Amino acid sequence: MTALSENPKSGAGRTTISVDAMGGDRGPAAVVAGISRSAKVNPDIRFILHGPKATLEKLVAKKKPLAGRVEIRDAQDVVSMEDKPSHVMRNGKATSMWSAIDSVRAKEADVCVSCGNTGALMMLSVVRLRKLPGVNRPAIAVLWPSRSAQGFNIMLDVGADIRADEQDLLQYALMGASYARNGMELKRPRIGLLNVGTEEHKGRAELKLAHDLITQNADAAEFDFVGFVEGGDIPGDVADVIITDGFTGNIALKTGEGTASLIGSLLREAFKYSPLSRLAALLAYTSLNRLNERIDPRRVNGGVFLGLNGTVVKSHGSADATGVSAAVKLAFKLSQSGFSEKLAARVASAVSLPQDDPMSKDNNGTTS
Amino acid sequence: MTALSENPKSGAGRTTISVDAMGGDRGPAAVVAGISRSAKVNPDIRFILHGPKATLEKLVAKKKPLAGRVEIRDAQDVVSMEDKPSHVMRNGKATSMWSAIDSVRAKEADVCVSCGNTGALMMLSVVRLRKLPGVNRPAIAVLWPSRSAQGFNIMLDVGADIRADEQDLLQYALMGASYARNGMELKRPRIGLLNVGTEEHKGRAELKLAHDLITQNADAAEFDFVGFVEGGDIPGDVADVIITDGFTGNIALKTGEGTASLIGSLLREAFKYSPLSRLAALLAYTSLNRLNERIDPRRVNGGVFLGLNGTVVKSHGSADATGVSAAVKLAFKLSQSGFSEKLAARVASAVSLPQDDPMSKDNNGTTS
Repeated sequence: MTALSENPKSGAGRTTISVDAMGGDRGPAAVVAGISRSAKVNPDIRFILHGPKATLEKLVAKKKPLAGRVEIRDAQDVVSMEDKPSHVMRNGKATSMWSAIDSVRAKEADVCVSCGNTGALMMLSVVRLRKLPGVNRPAIAVLWPSRSAQGFNIMLDVGADIRADEQDLLQYALMGASYARNGMELKRPRIGLLNVGTEEHKGRAELKLAHDLITQNADAAEFDFVGFVEGGDIPGDVADVIITDGFTGNIALKTGEGTASLIGSLLREAFKYSPLSRLAALLAYTSLNRLNERIDPRRVNGGVFLGLNGTVVKSHGSADATGVSAAVKLAFKLSQSGFSEKLAARVASAVSLPQDDPMSKDNNGTTS
Repeated sequence: MTALSENPKSGAGRTTISVDAMGGDRGPAAVVAGISRSAKVNPDIRFILHGPKATLEKLVAKKKPLAGRVEIRDAQDVVSMEDKPSHVMRNGKATSMWSAIDSVRAKEADVCVSCGNTGALMMLSVVRLRKLPGVNRPAIAVLWPSRSAQGFNIMLDVGADIRADEQDLLQYALMGASYARNGMELKRPRIGLLNVGTEEHKGRAELKLAHDLITQNADAAEFDFVGFVEGGDIPGDVADVIITDGFTGNIALKTGEGTASLIGSLLREAFKYSPLSRLAALLAYTSLNRLNERIDPRRVNGGVFLGLNGTVVKSHGSADATGVSAAVKLAFKLSQSGFSEKLAARVASAVSLPQDDPMSKDNNGTTS
């Protein structure tokens, strides 16, 4: 069981991140500016950068921190935001996205970062990297500003799949706990299962089954299961990791983002109202910036695809240099801690459990 | 089809609201203070107030605006927040909640207001008022601060039932449209169906069926169906009414509330940070109040139970006088517009449609 130890490696030396330079709303210049920022503050990082060679060479040449630390892989095609995933699957071999994922497949890098089309990135990742043994549905995990000590909670799945049964929810708990350990350095993360009430008799049937299954696995998997949590706990301090199906998670994520954005607009309006309020806004500038830093989505940029042979970080499509740099920082942290292998070991160690479980109706476990 | 006309009645004279004085976190004093505020600004309103007679008489006697406008119905028992709905069902005949609902059942009032236990209030309402012909699952509708011209959107169901099939979702669309017309004076409300993407091929099977069913009924029911909407549209301006199942709706509601509350806390923290930021907070006082008024849940206080013979407004358990008064204002508006009868007529006129619909697998319609 040595594979279960998840203490971050230190002094792992140079870490390579595979980066898709294309497909984001702001083009390759924003991506190159972002990786340059990361390179400047982090001497242990190097990049394989995927996209049209001539364009990328020019952009990279302009950034001193990138000198000697970027290998460019020529890929002439680009996946656009409008491309259907199935179309990319059939016709996308020459795209920068495909090439970026294949660097992880070839073990040249542990983690890939892309600002491109989420659906296409997910489909390509599943097909090229394949699912981990024991994982039926991969998941997308995001960080969410919260009242927890670490300032953020993890929520998954936020949209890889619209459904999840109790076995999938158990896998999400295992993967989310592993992410919290390696991405947030929480030794024993608190896991909560999203429901409409905290009483054990409430909610859908698969949630009650998942409640029992996760309870049984909590000790072996070294996390604390806090039971059912409610929507208000996603930004709260009762759990570090919130587990749900991709339909519910996606709607919660977008509702939270929409609410934050509405409040931001109303706040700006309120401060424009009168000369006095405009003066107040001036004086409050740094205070408001401090607030913004806490909830700015660019600073927690990166949905992470979990459950594959390798890790893929999906940056916001509209990410600027700050956003790309935040996604790279996350990718570096996960890569350096050996997250991909630890997650695989964690999931593999649990797949044998459900076979012994009389509660389980549907066993997706395979031996690893 | 005259029953389909839904223009608000005007000059309807005295309107009676049935009010449960007990069961809220702040006790009967907050409820009496709330109805007194409403009475002061609205000469057309009178109340039937339910609870322990001696206590209520003392409280009412202190409020001048209530003189001659309150009939007290003695009810000695109180439903607590911890009581299980099934327990209240069996043993709750002497409670103020039961008595308040029975005033609507006896047609003494069109609308009932209570700050008490939501689960018990819902169960008592369903059993005592009964479901409207054609309605399989009643729903709870809330108002949500939004970018729409009216400042709020309606969302339902937020937790009456954890599931909804395509027929239920159609009923929610009809009921939500009727609520928007009578509660917000929107002649032709825009209805959106909550999903994880706006493309028609995405999402769960029942959502695709509901999409077709609602499309077919939109013209006859006089609303605009804008199709699928996402979580970010709940506080947005693409739809006035957002339709979803009670599981998803409850999680979206609580996620939005939790996010708003987190941002509020961070904002207060930010303004306490330095002497300069404290000065800014002072100058920004009215601006921040203006923001607060837009998103203060007390000002849009009142989940409305739809689909029953009569309307029940559920006020927040923690409502103070301002919150109770907002719930009473909503109840008055719905009562005066003849909402209960109009909603019944609207639902009855649609129940025959599904029987002719080859898409429908499950027909809950009965003739009315």
